[in-house]
Amino acid sequence: MSNQKIKVAVAGVGFIGPVHIESIRRAGNLDVVALFHPFESEAAEKAAAMGIPKYYVDYDKMIKEEALDCVHICTPNNLHYPMAKTALLAGKHVICEKPLATTVKEAEELLALAREKKLVHAVSFNLRYYPLVRQMKKMRENGELGNVYSIMGSYLQDWLFYATDYNWRLEPDKSGDSKAIADIGSHLIDLIEYISGLSITEVMADFSTVHPTRKKPLKAVETYSGKMLSPEDYADVPIKTEDYASVLLRFSNGSKGVVTVSQVAAGRKNRLGLEIHGSNVTMSWNSETPNDLWIGKRNEANQVLMRDPSLVDKDVRSIIAYPGGHNEGFGDTSKQLFKEIYAAVREGKQPATPTYPTFEEGLRELRLCDAIVESHRKQGWVRIS
Amino acid sequence: MSNQKIKVAVAGVGFIGPVHIESIRRAGNLDVVALFHPFESEAAEKAAAMGIPKYYVDYDKMIKEEALDCVHICTPNNLHYPMAKTALLAGKHVICEKPLATTVKEAEELLALAREKKLVHAVSFNLRYYPLVRQMKKMRENGELGNVYSIMGSYLQDWLFYATDYNWRLEPDKSGDSKAIADIGSHLIDLIEYISGLSITEVMADFSTVHPTRKKPLKAVETYSGKMLSPEDYADVPIKTEDYASVLLRFSNGSKGVVTVSQVAAGRKNRLGLEIHGSNVTMSWNSETPNDLWIGKRNEANQVLMRDPSLVDKDVRSIIAYPGGHNEGFGDTSKQLFKEIYAAVREGKQPATPTYPTFEEGLRELRLCDAIVESHRKQGWVRIS
Amino acid sequence: MSNQKIKVAVAGVGFIGPVHIESIRRAGNLDVVALFHPFESEAAEKAAAMGIPKYYVDYDKMIKEEALDCVHICTPNNLHYPMAKTALLAGKHVICEKPLATTVKEAEELLALAREKKLVHAVSFNLRYYPLVRQMKKMRENGELGNVYSIMGSYLQDWLFYATDYNWRLEPDKSGDSKAIADIGSHLIDLIEYISGLSITEVMADFSTVHPTRKKPLKAVETYSGKMLSPEDYADVPIKTEDYASVLLRFSNGSKGVVTVSQVAAGRKNRLGLEIHGSNVTMSWNSETPNDLWIGKRNEANQVLMRDPSLVDKDVRSIIAYPGGHNEGFGDTSKQLFKEIYAAVREGKQPATPTYPTFEEGLRELRLCDAIVESHRKQGWVRIS
Amino acid sequence: MSNQKIKVAVAGVGFIGPVHIESIRRAGNLDVVALFHPFESEAAEKAAAMGIPKYYVDYDKMIKEEALDCVHICTPNNLHYPMAKTALLAGKHVICEKPLATTVKEAEELLALAREKKLVHAVSFNLRYYPLVRQMKKMRENGELGNVYSIMGSYLQDWLFYATDYNWRLEPDKSGDSKAIADIGSHLIDLIEYISGLSITEVMADFSTVHPTRKKPLKAVETYSGKMLSPEDYADVPIKTEDYASVLLRFSNGSKGVVTVSQVAAGRKNRLGLEIHGSNVTMSWNSETPNDLWIGKRNEANQVLMRDPSLVDKDVRSIIAYPGGHNEGFGDTSKQLFKEIYAAVREGKQPATPTYPTFEEGLRELRLCDAIVESHRKQGWVRIS
Repeated sequence: MSNQKIKVAVAGVGFIGPVHIESIRRAGNLDVVALFHPFESEAAEKAAAMGIPKYYVDYDKMIKEEALDCVHICTPNNLHYPMAKTALLAGKHVICEKPLATTVKEAEELLALAREKKLVHAVSFNLRYYPLVRQMKKMRENGELGNVYSIMGSYLQDWLFYATDYNWRLEPDKSGDSKAIADIGSHLIDLIEYISGLSITEVMADFSTVHPTRKKPLKAVETYSGKMLSPEDYADVPIKTEDYASVLLRFSNGSKGVVTVSQVAAGRKNRLGLEIHGSNVTMSWNSETPNDLWIGKRNEANQVLMRDPSLVDKDVRSIIAYPGGHNEGFGDTSKQLFKEIYAAVREGKQPATPTYPTFEEGLRELRLCDAIVESHRKQGWVRIS
Repeated sequence: MSNQKIKVAVAGVGFIGPVHIESIRRAGNLDVVALFHPFESEAAEKAAAMGIPKYYVDYDKMIKEEALDCVHICTPNNLHYPMAKTALLAGKHVICEKPLATTVKEAEELLALAREKKLVHAVSFNLRYYPLVRQMKKMRENGELGNVYSIMGSYLQDWLFYATDYNWRLEPDKSGDSKAIADIGSHLIDLIEYISGLSITEVMADFSTVHPTRKKPLKAVETYSGKMLSPEDYADVPIKTEDYASVLLRFSNGSKGVVTVSQVAAGRKNRLGLEIHGSNVTMSWNSETPNDLWIGKRNEANQVLMRDPSLVDKDVRSIIAYPGGHNEGFGDTSKQLFKEIYAAVREGKQPATPTYPTFEEGLRELRLCDAIVESHRKQGWVRIS
Repeated sequence: MSNQKIKVAVAGVGFIGPVHIESIRRAGNLDVVALFHPFESEAAEKAAAMGIPKYYVDYDKMIKEEALDCVHICTPNNLHYPMAKTALLAGKHVICEKPLATTVKEAEELLALAREKKLVHAVSFNLRYYPLVRQMKKMRENGELGNVYSIMGSYLQDWLFYATDYNWRLEPDKSGDSKAIADIGSHLIDLIEYISGLSITEVMADFSTVHPTRKKPLKAVETYSGKMLSPEDYADVPIKTEDYASVLLRFSNGSKGVVTVSQVAAGRKNRLGLEIHGSNVTMSWNSETPNDLWIGKRNEANQVLMRDPSLVDKDVRSIIAYPGGHNEGFGDTSKQLFKEIYAAVREGKQPATPTYPTFEEGLRELRLCDAIVESHRKQGWVRIS
Repeated sequence: MSNQKIKVAVAGVGFIGPVHIESIRRAGNLDVVALFHPFESEAAEKAAAMGIPKYYVDYDKMIKEEALDCVHICTPNNLHYPMAKTALLAGKHVICEKPLATTVKEAEELLALAREKKLVHAVSFNLRYYPLVRQMKKMRENGELGNVYSIMGSYLQDWLFYATDYNWRLEPDKSGDSKAIADIGSHLIDLIEYISGLSITEVMADFSTVHPTRKKPLKAVETYSGKMLSPEDYADVPIKTEDYASVLLRFSNGSKGVVTVSQVAAGRKNRLGLEIHGSNVTMSWNSETPNDLWIGKRNEANQVLMRDPSLVDKDVRSIIAYPGGHNEGFGDTSKQLFKEIYAAVREGKQPATPTYPTFEEGLRELRLCDAIVESHRKQGWVRIS
């Protein structure tokens, strides 16, 4: 199929769906032929605005009627499992937003099904596609980091800072039993295992719900956009999931670490910070200044490595679009992710060792989140099965 | 024509042409139907790689044969004038890379022609579309800056650092009598007038050619990509244009400033820095960390304003795609620029007061560069006509 | 005694003793009349180099013979208790380096004795005297911070990075059962309680000894200076204390936090970082750039408050020596600390509510360190008694 | 005289005098035996506060009566020449604040006199004593920088931001014909020549007086402290000297540069920034974060070198007091400067090649400032004689 445009549909057009659509269009010879959104008028409006030929309010109908190669699932978390399953059963390749499902069991089922059907499966851990994240991975692989001594991570946001900030992610039936850990901690933990090449073997967590009651707006607002609205009519809703969590980590090589996540940290808009102490150097990076990697040294000056194709590891160059100093950002990560996934889609099958995150990593994430939630509940260390 | 896809061609596919193509695809309901490149095999290869249906090695033929709405001119500088003229005469809207032409006279002719033909005309000063650049402009317009006391700017790069770094921009017949000022100084000076709302009235320049002889590679390399190659076979070429320049500036309100540009500043990959001292605050920004704006205050803590739709002026929100903390970069500027230009293309005519840079600004740039070159030659102040 | 110079002796002249001496001389009308060091030739040399009239190799003799007002104890940790006790019994005011003692019991005894004798007692938590640390405390007291939601802290160094890095602090008989927590974690935890006004009520710790064997040099080297020497003759020494620790914290207001300390983090020379998330703002500060305080806000631009007497809380001005932009550093903290302590010494008695850290805080530190060590040993949460 | 305390007097106790006194006390075996201040009650008060045994309101009397070794001149600029002359004629070593005098002729006379009398003479260009400034000098000397391509400097402050900010430095009869250039530009230009080893051969300046009228307070305020006062009773005073200046520079090796100074740049408290582009690396440093040196590279990651004795050139270690990460600041520069000057005082004579700035540099500064002022007046390039 190498000369044809690949046909793609996107399910869900809240915050992340449109990011997918734009990134698909940048990733090469691809065609977004349809979108799914459950509400007729909004679906029509979005399709027109983004120049997408068709829209559906019935997901199953879209899967049945359209000659799709691949489906992107960008709906609320509780819909990931049924929609991914439907697509796989219909023989479509699937790119799913994280989390892959709401339970480990569902995720195991999806992974097994994708394998059985020999379809391309991917989970959108797009943050792996910041070029300097891959650079850190390569520095670990090629020995520049040395042995990992310890890992510190944090992911801080402020979009849920006020009790009047509200979103479907706060509702366990849509989003699951964990909020901050599942929503943003999962990205952080994925990066930690991805970069370090280590497995987390034990976790010890402590959660905090800063706003035990939140005020739910009586009309719908999109993720992140809420902060631009003035509070109007709200209903009180008790909140059970965590706004903040810290988790002690133990790794497969005996080293230790800790992560902290908060969605109520004023002024931190979307800051994933990561610092890995190795026996050769320290690597420190954060997502708010993603074009710089700080490299700490004991006996020489520290370094700041810029995202520049001429300065990074040769295996990182393929996911850099512009020369050094031409800042790349959040939007560029999905484009690079999709470029690698769609190379597989074009081949028609999952490669033996995919460069992109798959349903395996999606399943891994759910196992780790489960263990973290269990650790908080039992107030003690939990071993990862 | 509001429901149809707008038909676009791109002439030139070196470094900046592909940036245009990707940005056009992100900017909405647009279709890149053809590209021009003078060499058959490369043209074919690029068209295939980017999924563009047709390619031409004869620009005039493309203009004649294709039912184009708009042409992007991304070729070397000396071709801007003839290609823009051909497109305008054929009734096409034109988006031209800077500089608009190689002489003031040519630029005047193009501006007059575009006006006569009532076509949309734009020059790609894309750096204006960093959201925080527009934010600075708004802060000046709404009085937050106060009166301008002084302006300091610099644009520093290192891609011509070595004598073995070579590019067509070094050759006056292709690029004009000025290199650093014309190539990057023009962006800086455009931003200064755009943000401050002031006109530069006098300039006093001093240039320096750090490498009076450069080694030209015996095979072609793309802009910026040269630094990844090892030096091989080179020919000695005497260089007459400047690697470095400093220019004292005087403004229409009596205030003063200075800009420095260098393309031989090791470690500065592509850093445009700007600091404007006003009677209320100082604003400081640079293109390598474009998501932060430093605001200096005398009697309060200084501020760092992040590119966040909820924090900026309401007129800046339309050119921000993602929430705060989701870094945006160089690639996003062209997308936002094209969105505003294509809104005009869709209307079929240049608006009375365009939000985007037009041939007027392209002409202004040439006048300023001429004055700067003249000032260096005569070693004294030159008044802008 | 307001017109006389206060007579001071300093015991111990390794790394921190000379810092005390210089700071005493800056703090006003004080006179360092003698020093103690156990080795004759070094003692003589140091006294001469620093222009101190007398030196002693017998501490008790110094206390007996000199008409001292106040003694600074800067010797290894295990000598703090006996030397402080001797000085107090002789009626001298005492300024003790941290830790106050090696056990809670000893510290309790010293506190009781100092109170009984009505003498000035202080522990050198000098980091409290970075002006922006006090500024954070004031911002909490005056409501600018709001309620504390969470606290993240870290203290990272690299002077023990290599297995060949060695120091008496690694030896439990001189330094106690904990290294990183006792040595640097104590400063961090002290600042957290000082700034937040909260008490830590429970801790959950996990330690890591990165180098289980270190190579001890066969000749003595001063703290910190070791890194400038080449490794020569070393003996293998098994290490039991931690190079790294992370500790989950719970606070008296129900909020939570975490601290991480490491002395094997390449490139982090001496970086205490602290971030406190409040219901109004976030405050973030680190000791390597101590003249800047980052203040995070949800609905406004973030701020960077410089250490400037005209910008800080009025109660902070007294510990700032220079105008904004004239960087102050580590050496300035002890000077400011001593100025406040010696105001009490001049009055001849401890004030009712001292502004400086006293033996109470020294005792508190030991209790917290004990609990942290116990938590690591029992692998569970430990409540602070 | 190696065992005796050196006897020192300080003339002038405004902002900088007390900085000298404290630094003298840190610099070793020195004794401040007297101070001069023209107003009896203030002189008495300052002497008591700083524990200085004697004060004088008659400078000549102090020079005559006290058995001084060395005099520090910290009075307003117009008094430097007569006071330095008096001290030299009386056989005292002299440490003079900059500028050395108000005219080149006076400075030449003082230099000749100091040489004739074989006395130690120094000018307090203390900024040279930021350890990383000396590091830059060493990197140039040892070839790490390579040939200088260009130099950019700025010195920005905001303490004269408002028309109500007032100081004796604004009055030509006390301070000379130039304000910003003489006051802070002189430090910047001194560092440029010191670090680069180049001489400035030509200058081209443009000045701006942002506040042509200022409001002088009707009672005296100290330098820098004015900003903490509320405006009360003021008198209108016309201002002739510059608040802002930019100066194009040409160097002895043919390279070029530019400096900008402003004392009306909101939020810039005291920021001297310097960037030197060499044929090997770029070095960038500023005085507000003086413990970090940015080193730019074309083919490797950029570096940030911390002020750490184990990381700098061996000839820089002697002016570093604390290990890396223990921030040093403004107060530490004078201490290190005085340590080097007083080593010469102890020898009783100026060394053949002093490491510290002398009257020669003081004279050089006046020549350069004169040329800059002349260039602004004649609106053209001026060659340095």
